[in-house]
Amino acid sequence: MDISVIENVLKKIRPTEEERAFVNGLMMELGEIAEETVEELGLEVKPYFVGSLAKDTYLAGDHDVDLFLAFPLETPPEELREKGLELGKAIAEKLDSHEVAYAEHPYVRASYKGVSVDLVPCYNVNSWRDVKTAVDRSILHTRWVNESIKGKNDEVRLLKRFLKGINTYGSEIYVRGFSGYLAEILVIKYGSFLDVLKKADFMLRQKIIDPENWLRKEPEIAMRTVKREVELDRPLIVLDPVDPRRNVAANLSWERYGVFYFNAMEFLEEPSTKFFFPEKAEAGDYLDELRRKGTHLVTLIFGKPDLIDDLLLPQLEKSARGLERALEREGFGVLGWNCGYSGDKAFIMLEVERVERPAVKIHPGPEFFTERGRDFYRKNERVWLRGKMLYAEKRVKENILDVISELLEKNQASLGKNLREAVKDADFLVDYVPSELEGEAYLFLSRKKEGLKV
Amino acid sequence: MDISVIENVLKKIRPTEEERAFVNGLMMELGEIAEETVEELGLEVKPYFVGSLAKDTYLAGDHDVDLFLAFPLETPPEELREKGLELGKAIAEKLDSHEVAYAEHPYVRASYKGVSVDLVPCYNVNSWRDVKTAVDRSILHTRWVNESIKGKNDEVRLLKRFLKGINTYGSEIYVRGFSGYLAEILVIKYGSFLDVLKKADFMLRQKIIDPENWLRKEPEIAMRTVKREVELDRPLIVLDPVDPRRNVAANLSWERYGVFYFNAMEFLEEPSTKFFFPEKAEAGDYLDELRRKGTHLVTLIFGKPDLIDDLLLPQLEKSARGLERALEREGFGVLGWNCGYSGDKAFIMLEVERVERPAVKIHPGPEFFTERGRDFYRKNERVWLRGKMLYAEKRVKENILDVISELLEKNQASLGKNLREAVKDADFLVDYVPSELEGEAYLFLSRKKEGLKV
Repeated sequence: MDISVIENVLKKIRPTEEERAFVNGLMMELGEIAEETVEELGLEVKPYFVGSLAKDTYLAGDHDVDLFLAFPLETPPEELREKGLELGKAIAEKLDSHEVAYAEHPYVRASYKGVSVDLVPCYNVNSWRDVKTAVDRSILHTRWVNESIKGKNDEVRLLKRFLKGINTYGSEIYVRGFSGYLAEILVIKYGSFLDVLKKADFMLRQKIIDPENWLRKEPEIAMRTVKREVELDRPLIVLDPVDPRRNVAANLSWERYGVFYFNAMEFLEEPSTKFFFPEKAEAGDYLDELRRKGTHLVTLIFGKPDLIDDLLLPQLEKSARGLERALEREGFGVLGWNCGYSGDKAFIMLEVERVERPAVKIHPGPEFFTERGRDFYRKNERVWLRGKMLYAEKRVKENILDVISELLEKNQASLGKNLREAVKDADFLVDYVPSELEGEAYLFLSRKKEGLKV
Repeated sequence: MDISVIENVLKKIRPTEEERAFVNGLMMELGEIAEETVEELGLEVKPYFVGSLAKDTYLAGDHDVDLFLAFPLETPPEELREKGLELGKAIAEKLDSHEVAYAEHPYVRASYKGVSVDLVPCYNVNSWRDVKTAVDRSILHTRWVNESIKGKNDEVRLLKRFLKGINTYGSEIYVRGFSGYLAEILVIKYGSFLDVLKKADFMLRQKIIDPENWLRKEPEIAMRTVKREVELDRPLIVLDPVDPRRNVAANLSWERYGVFYFNAMEFLEEPSTKFFFPEKAEAGDYLDELRRKGTHLVTLIFGKPDLIDDLLLPQLEKSARGLERALEREGFGVLGWNCGYSGDKAFIMLEVERVERPAVKIHPGPEFFTERGRDFYRKNERVWLRGKMLYAEKRVKENILDVISELLEKNQASLGKNLREAVKDADFLVDYVPSELEGEAYLFLSRKKEGLKV
């Protein structure tokens, strides 16, 4: 292993002493402001820094602050919501600027000295049994990582940068990759960046990673988690060191794990900084791709419903898959689909083998010697037999746009429930996309978007 | 039921008294010639008339003679073959003209007073236990029908003419319909022509027809026959009244039974002479059919191997199905196939959805985390994942003729074994056939050939 690659990368991603001093100063200052404001408002709230800054696993130049405002467990949810927002705003007033953002509870996103500062109300939990909202675990995560990391912070930085470089970092719905916390757990478990890469195959076979021995300490709860996640066919089941009910890798998809798997293999064979800092994908012309492949691109464009990504993207995917299945059924071979949004327009792209089909289709019927067989015989014009099965010729629409219109009209394509109306009003485009989607169309058609090997 | 239809048909198909007198005179004369010749050659052979003439179930004007020459059971097969042919020739010498024809054994086909006379050597069997060659049962069949028919000869004539009219008569390989003997059994079993039609559905449900109670008299042998034929999924199992080992309906296909089924239904609903004497199918232009349907016709023409129909046709069908499957796999939707021969040229026609496909195909691979997955990843250019499965883009030939050439070259289409070389040297035609196949192409594309309802 040529160690110089890793050294070179570390030089770029390890925060300098100046950056550390700045970040530490910033945290100190913010902590004081927070405590002072808590006192002013007469609240019993403890501020905690969480996230990669608090764990010292942040990448150079990437130092957003997560300041959590922990309320006593006995605080009613409504009060937490209200007072939490009030406190966040009061702190933010002392910073440079702010706005209110929304997750499970509203929180304040402020800016201070050029750094983004999230002020998030939560409960002051001491154990997984106390956890009430999704953000409550962050304090426990930060504590666990800091207790367990034992100086391997740079190894985490390497893994995070590697995952970013190969486009598998982030557990958001539109990535479905590795979260920062998962990267930390893997380094803690396997010892180093390189060890995690070497374990890419082993991990998948072992399937279950349980750093805090929940399967021994809480066998019933942990087994329930394992069973549930096995049924959901997750690539990995990483029992959260701070909560046996949770799979840290629940959002990791097979696709993203596969990308990690092959990049790990290739990096170990031939290390290069390009895994960490890839060149920007070469832009290309989607029309050239269509010509080269001899395929066609059908794009549906419609108003993006006002939904958060966690709801919108699965529904877009469901709709794309529904259209794929329906078009396959109708004899238009679908090579792939892609969906997303740009501004206030959502889109579904389908790469198809052809846009025209014959005017007749063979309609398979039932066995001839049945009531349904006799009906089929009576109802259809041209009928014949193969073996004991009836077949008939059926006239169909030839153009794919007519077929899609008909499928939508007759509700014969399964769509995401909040998208049905929007998709029905979609504009259809064939072998053409508006300029803002040209890049997207190219990445999709060239497979550079899914990008395992292109 | 309007009885006049049946009366009108009977007038046409019942032999006149003149024809009967001629036929009976002919048989008497031929019988005498045969016995005289047997004596001249010093043979111990008994001549039998078999077939529809001997059973008085022939249709007016359709009176070919089957004269069987029954040798003693102890005659060795080679002797039967030799002496049988010798005797046949000696008899034929006294008739107008003759030639040698070939089945299991050679026989003589003579002509006398404008009538075709088959002189077929066989064994003089008294029971199914004696049966040695396929033709031996004919004597038993004739005897059984004559003992059982009880004057219903015209009912058989009606059924035979009906089956001919709807193109389901004949157990030959290129028809796979009802044999004359099967028609006789059905009339004897159910009582009349109309009763047979009324039983079209019932028969299929009952499945087993056993007029001589073999299942009681020879349960073991009869059950073995039933089991074998059930496994072969025959539409009907008619235990031969003279041989419990044989299904009289073994050659009857589901397709031909289906045609009978629906025509019986329609005739009973609305009787008409057109079922017995259909108008000739209207000729049409195959190119118009292609235009109307938006499909394409690919025809392979090649030298007809010198094989009898019983061998050639199944191999042609196998080859057509092999090409159908291979082309389907390659993404050219196949709507149907047709095969046959005309003169010394055999042909396979395939109706396809398109003759050009995209230049790339999606090549599905294995799960990524396997040895085969890693190989697949290394070997292919553009690779991506859906779930845990790998996929790659593969460049392929676009034109169907190039694809067929490649399939044949690489032996990737299953062909009849005596046709492999011939098919590889075939000429390919797209949307065009030589003039002698234009009618065939039209009947195929318009489905008038399979003709259940067109």
